[in-house]
Amino acid sequence: MEILQKISDSLLALKTKKPLVHHITNYVTVNDCANITLAIGASPVMADDIEEVEEMVSFAAALVLNIGTLNSRSIESMVAVGKKAKEKGIPIIFDPVGVGATTLRTATAKRIIQEVCPSVIRGNMSEMKIIAGVAADIKGVDSVADEVDGEEVARQLSQKLGCVIAITGKQDIIAHGKQLCRINNGHAILSQVTGTGCMATSLIACYCGATDDWFTGAVAGVMTMGLAGELAQQSLQAGEGIGTFRVRLFDAVWSLTPEVIRKGGRITNG
Amino acid sequence: MEILQKISDSLLALKTKKPLVHHITNYVTVNDCANITLAIGASPVMADDIEEVEEMVSFAAALVLNIGTLNSRSIESMVAVGKKAKEKGIPIIFDPVGVGATTLRTATAKRIIQEVCPSVIRGNMSEMKIIAGVAADIKGVDSVADEVDGEEVARQLSQKLGCVIAITGKQDIIAHGKQLCRINNGHAILSQVTGTGCMATSLIACYCGATDDWFTGAVAGVMTMGLAGELAQQSLQAGEGIGTFRVRLFDAVWSLTPEVIRKGGRITNG
Amino acid sequence: MEILQKISDSLLALKTKKPLVHHITNYVTVNDCANITLAIGASPVMADDIEEVEEMVSFAAALVLNIGTLNSRSIESMVAVGKKAKEKGIPIIFDPVGVGATTLRTATAKRIIQEVCPSVIRGNMSEMKIIAGVAADIKGVDSVADEVDGEEVARQLSQKLGCVIAITGKQDIIAHGKQLCRINNGHAILSQVTGTGCMATSLIACYCGATDDWFTGAVAGVMTMGLAGELAQQSLQAGEGIGTFRVRLFDAVWSLTPEVIRKGGRITNG
Repeated sequence: MEILQKISDSLLALKTKKPLVHHITNYVTVNDCANITLAIGASPVMADDIEEVEEMVSFAAALVLNIGTLNSRSIESMVAVGKKAKEKGIPIIFDPVGVGATTLRTATAKRIIQEVCPSVIRGNMSEMKIIAGVAADIKGVDSVADEVDGEEVARQLSQKLGCVIAITGKQDIIAHGKQLCRINNGHAILSQVTGTGCMATSLIACYCGATDDWFTGAVAGVMTMGLAGELAQQSLQAGEGIGTFRVRLFDAVWSLTPEVIRKGGRITNG
Repeated sequence: MEILQKISDSLLALKTKKPLVHHITNYVTVNDCANITLAIGASPVMADDIEEVEEMVSFAAALVLNIGTLNSRSIESMVAVGKKAKEKGIPIIFDPVGVGATTLRTATAKRIIQEVCPSVIRGNMSEMKIIAGVAADIKGVDSVADEVDGEEVARQLSQKLGCVIAITGKQDIIAHGKQLCRINNGHAILSQVTGTGCMATSLIACYCGATDDWFTGAVAGVMTMGLAGELAQQSLQAGEGIGTFRVRLFDAVWSLTPEVIRKGGRITNG
Repeated sequence: MEILQKISDSLLALKTKKPLVHHITNYVTVNDCANITLAIGASPVMADDIEEVEEMVSFAAALVLNIGTLNSRSIESMVAVGKKAKEKGIPIIFDPVGVGATTLRTATAKRIIQEVCPSVIRGNMSEMKIIAGVAADIKGVDSVADEVDGEEVARQLSQKLGCVIAITGKQDIIAHGKQLCRINNGHAILSQVTGTGCMATSLIACYCGATDDWFTGAVAGVMTMGLAGELAQQSLQAGEGIGTFRVRLFDAVWSLTPEVIRKGGRITNG
């Protein structure tokens, strides 16, 4: 089946199942993550206290771990809830925000990869090169961090870690084992709003909570954010700017249909 | 006096007194709670450190306790600040977000009810049934949690706990002792924005901070959110969606007048 | 050179350098601070864990310390990161939110002033009078807190603390040593949105991260918020309110150009 068709089917499954997505995320963009989860048709829950995260995730269909504003308290909760989610078999979407910038972030990413084994990792190219180094360190193999080709980084990292790798940027690359595709949706203005990366991660979790095909879920989440960005940008009139763009981004995600996906999705294989 | 007239009077009192509302709330919707408090004409302050909450609440006209993202640190602050507010005699509005989902939430709700005695408790029907169980447990009496009739749950719970009970849903039910009313305002789209429940709780606190009639304050807060939701929904044009709706919700609360209340309020007694 | 010309030059420098602004701020308005930083053309990073703040600030061009929702954990991080920023020589912008309301806030402001020596302090008149008392206490000199003249408070405080003082209100006063100016931009509606003070502080940091002239940076940040408030207010149509105003505020900051500054800036010297 063609990828746009698979994404459309995932969207319909999402709207029917309304998966509960448990987030431990940063306090900067948490409201946006909750609202984008609702806009696409899923249901968010945010809980991070170590005393309740394992119970809370037992109701969830997917888990987001985002280290944007990590601290010693939330790191322990992330590891605990991640193990529980793994045990339960639900998808774990990991967003290693700012990995490489500090020792704490890199060490936390390493710990989450080792102890939790995420199902999907989403980051930009520079974050993913750090993740490649972390993976090499864990697996005792050569790092692909020096690779200039994003496709090769994604492919090898996916094979090493046995998970879906989503590298977002001007062109997004999603890889899982031998599957790989490139997404050409998106617009540069997206980088002028905080949290569009975090929201893409939440959207991946929404889709993955509604389908067993996590590769398609990752493609769908990333494409949804890119396409919504394009539509929001196109809607801007003279005098309107980034505040209005941000509002329309939520409008566009909320209005997404299989027709919009088929018409606007720009994805190429391999 | 008729209830819509009482609500109108409370709104005018609120706009004159500009009550300061101290919140300990969750980090997901805290910005929305602060903005809705300002939009209606009151003044928000958020402070949660145990070393300062008792001093801070001494300036406040009302207190919100919301357990949406509770943790061991904030729970202790909630109990301490709640006791101080009680001592001072200002209204305490409790929002038991997600009670029943985890042991920690249920235990915390029990502790707040026992040690703080909230003036108003607002939640949805499933949360309120858990609160009914908690209340029965505290008071050593039969639970009404098996009641299918919301009116009976609200009435008995109010009498047992000696506080105002606000159950929000398709139709909202507010009870205090022998007083009870049903609010028919609202729109299903409100559930597609995060924090509309939290904001209703903040609005209740704004009104209760300006009047001694906390039953009217609770009715006013819930009705304000419902009516604003209707007005925001009606304003949507083709192509506009949930992001625009959320913006207009704040516009509508900010524009609320006695005239709008009299024209749009749909409340039935008993 | 004329002040509006200097502000215009700073804006162009900011858009070229895209300074990274490290924030330790409150969880109420943190998303707005991140978005306003992006809107003006800079880049935000929020990190508050003691284990990573010193490493993170090493990449930054400016630091914001905002005590809006301080706690024992974040206070230690603020002091540690502030010392590191000082060592590095980057500007530190301090926003003593609510100082004077609680012992903890006043003690924390004192500690930050003593141990970190901020480059710019921004607050409203009542906060600045408390800061004047704190400064007198530290320096063992007479307090200017009883001064009724804002200009005198700003001037003396700046000289005592050796930093830029920005007092925001109906008319804003910025002082640094012998330099002083008054800004007549702004609109009362700005006080009906949470975080406009915090965002002004973030904007100061964005400008100061791009210029060595921190007096101009402070004037530029405060003027940008005031002018954006005017433009957003003027754009409101019948039926639009505070939610729409808030969206347009970001539109206006994002659209700011030297032409808009020259046309709309209303600044008087001395």
